[in-house]
Amino acid sequence: MNAEIISVGTELLLGHTINTDASFVARELSAAGINLLYTCTVGDNPERLKDAVETALDRSDAVITTGGLGPTGDDLTKETVAACAGKKLVMDQASMDHIEKYFKGRLLSPTQKKQAMLPEGCTVFPNHVGTAPGCGFRSANGKLVAMLPGPPSELIPMLKDCAVPFLLKDTENAAIVSRIVRVFGLGEGYVAEQIADLCEKTNPTSATYAKDGEMFVRVTARAETSEKAAAQCEPVVEDLKERLGEFCYGVDVESLEEAVVRLLAERHLTVATAESCTGGLVAKRITDIPGSSAVFHMGAVTYANEIKTKLLGVPEDVLKQYGAVSPQVAKLMAQGVREAACSDFGIGITGIAGPDGGTPEKPIGLVYLALSDGKDVWVREMRNTGCTKGRGYVRFLAASNALDMIRRRVLGLGGMEYAAYSREKHAG
Amino acid sequence: MNAEIISVGTELLLGHTINTDASFVARELSAAGINLLYTCTVGDNPERLKDAVETALDRSDAVITTGGLGPTGDDLTKETVAACAGKKLVMDQASMDHIEKYFKGRLLSPTQKKQAMLPEGCTVFPNHVGTAPGCGFRSANGKLVAMLPGPPSELIPMLKDCAVPFLLKDTENAAIVSRIVRVFGLGEGYVAEQIADLCEKTNPTSATYAKDGEMFVRVTARAETSEKAAAQCEPVVEDLKERLGEFCYGVDVESLEEAVVRLLAERHLTVATAESCTGGLVAKRITDIPGSSAVFHMGAVTYANEIKTKLLGVPEDVLKQYGAVSPQVAKLMAQGVREAACSDFGIGITGIAGPDGGTPEKPIGLVYLALSDGKDVWVREMRNTGCTKGRGYVRFLAASNALDMIRRRVLGLGGMEYAAYSREKHAG
Repeated sequence: MNAEIISVGTELLLGHTINTDASFVARELSAAGINLLYTCTVGDNPERLKDAVETALDRSDAVITTGGLGPTGDDLTKETVAACAGKKLVMDQASMDHIEKYFKGRLLSPTQKKQAMLPEGCTVFPNHVGTAPGCGFRSANGKLVAMLPGPPSELIPMLKDCAVPFLLKDTENAAIVSRIVRVFGLGEGYVAEQIADLCEKTNPTSATYAKDGEMFVRVTARAETSEKAAAQCEPVVEDLKERLGEFCYGVDVESLEEAVVRLLAERHLTVATAESCTGGLVAKRITDIPGSSAVFHMGAVTYANEIKTKLLGVPEDVLKQYGAVSPQVAKLMAQGVREAACSDFGIGITGIAGPDGGTPEKPIGLVYLALSDGKDVWVREMRNTGCTKGRGYVRFLAASNALDMIRRRVLGLGGMEYAAYSREKHAG
Repeated sequence: MNAEIISVGTELLLGHTINTDASFVARELSAAGINLLYTCTVGDNPERLKDAVETALDRSDAVITTGGLGPTGDDLTKETVAACAGKKLVMDQASMDHIEKYFKGRLLSPTQKKQAMLPEGCTVFPNHVGTAPGCGFRSANGKLVAMLPGPPSELIPMLKDCAVPFLLKDTENAAIVSRIVRVFGLGEGYVAEQIADLCEKTNPTSATYAKDGEMFVRVTARAETSEKAAAQCEPVVEDLKERLGEFCYGVDVESLEEAVVRLLAERHLTVATAESCTGGLVAKRITDIPGSSAVFHMGAVTYANEIKTKLLGVPEDVLKQYGAVSPQVAKLMAQGVREAACSDFGIGITGIAGPDGGTPEKPIGLVYLALSDGKDVWVREMRNTGCTKGRGYVRFLAASNALDMIRRRVLGLGGMEYAAYSREKHAG
């Protein structure tokens, strides 16, 4: 099945809203085995929208529109698409009831009521977040049409729960299950090579994605029922976990920080952080996760040397002798914050995020990360030197490495210092 | 002038790359007074690209392509667009020299050399970041065509420096200057009303944008020269600053944190942060700014009550009596961290970011922010209750409010506690 997305909204053509809806729909269509051949964006202009819809109904098997279903005067998608597809709009009582309930008895304007007008005989996609329902139907020329609202919080659940099943309803194996296998410490290219045989298979499909210094593999199966599709995914996910080994940090988790917070919580362990160049980013990422208060009691951002001494007990002479950006200082920061917080683990991070402050011996991108468990302390050196992605990227990647060290220590995986660094032991 | 963007790349249709290029081009075209009527995306497929280009050359005055200029086999934009536009590709020696220099004498593959092939008679857009040049030319049917590379780091400077001037070269007033006036504490709707007369004017144009709990106004003027355009912007920018008053935190700055770091640095002032619900986000945002080490020496993330007591000196009985989420605790956190860091200002933040932990008296979204200057202490209460944007948004907005309080205190603006809260004075 070949598909096309039409995004409707003048705000998209002015460039102040990035069209994340189109990417999201594209990803779900790809996972569903539907070939997306075109996407286009038009403003809130009925003539140009009509042109785009007519072209799409002519050349594609399925047309998905996003946006323009709301109550305002410039929301014209339904009227225009229905006219192009040879459909009359009729009032859908269930949608009207939902809108009335949403407004809790307040008087509805005619434009609010307009939202309950849907193409005759369509499949209604209920909106559990906002007021405008979506819908799916077949056009007079036999093409599948799905209309979705623009706000991502409304579009995302409706797409997954209603639109994709609608598009697949007449195809075999309409149930789809996707699993996400997340990986830190291996490049996308390397993983793609290791799993090339899996990526060539069609059901389940496996595809690699890279993002923010890490990567993931998406496994998608189609079958008659969700249970069967899930069962088809299972051996591939297990195979991936086996092949990716200790670099796979989780399946169906959102992020490294989520995996780390869950792991610490399960084992009733706590961590404290002392950050210099990352400036609170590790603490921020840990506390992004609901429930992190059980595993994280204290973080210190020690930008100045005096604060490293005062708060973490890093001796002045060590700072003088080795410099603030050194494995020695990272270690003492990790040990100092662990003791101050009385936590199981302490993290210390010191480095040069740029754009200034680099020297030939200590270039921009050099970061030392230490983890102390009260007995041992490990140091990882990161040299993202020559990286053109800037300060933000160096900081993010350093924070990810700190999270990786916590995970590796809790699971006893080794690799704390990368292969290049020998394990050093110190009394805590 | 009516324009159209064609984005080329299969990765965009698979949904794993969000098309930020299209938004960026859209924004610049809008600022340049060029009407963007359509954007479309096609994969690395010559037939479908040809269709899209032919349609665009037929219905639009200007066509801008992004992507597909690189050296690999699926980079087909130049060949396809040139053929549609009735142009022959010829070797551009300057581009070839640049590519050879880029590869430092290593042997060039034929596909690398392909990048220097450009439509005959075109204006070359040099690529100072990567290898593939862009270009601009007139098609056989008299339409303007600009081709840009896909990577944003290459596209952005080439668009501003070459493509927009190329598109405007035959129009009057081809020089464009934009200024950004940033605002915190006023809604977009309110500002749009206050400046409706300016938004209706055409040269300079003024347009409002909302993002992440704040808003900005973009002022754009066109004239024969940049100097004249800048001079036209100036009175409008001054007028906006006057109308928006203390809510305008900067002109041509990137963010509230940049404005705050600059302001503190100018006045040789320092700030320290003690964060509970924001978990290090204020520290992270301050240290996102290069040079922040001059104004920020210490941040504390005190998630647990014991740490608030131990690190910041918040008495246990105050925590017991008022609860951790209280104006009293916020104040003591601000005072405690200021003293610990020996800084000019201390920030204390405590609240309930959700999704759990809310009670009827202290609902999710309730945050207390305090600023101490060693003599006075101010508390701001935020009640983002019922906000559906979630934990991340509550945290971000709280951090922005903390930054706003710093700015207001440094500038002596008042409004530290919003109108709803009376100023409370306490010995530091």
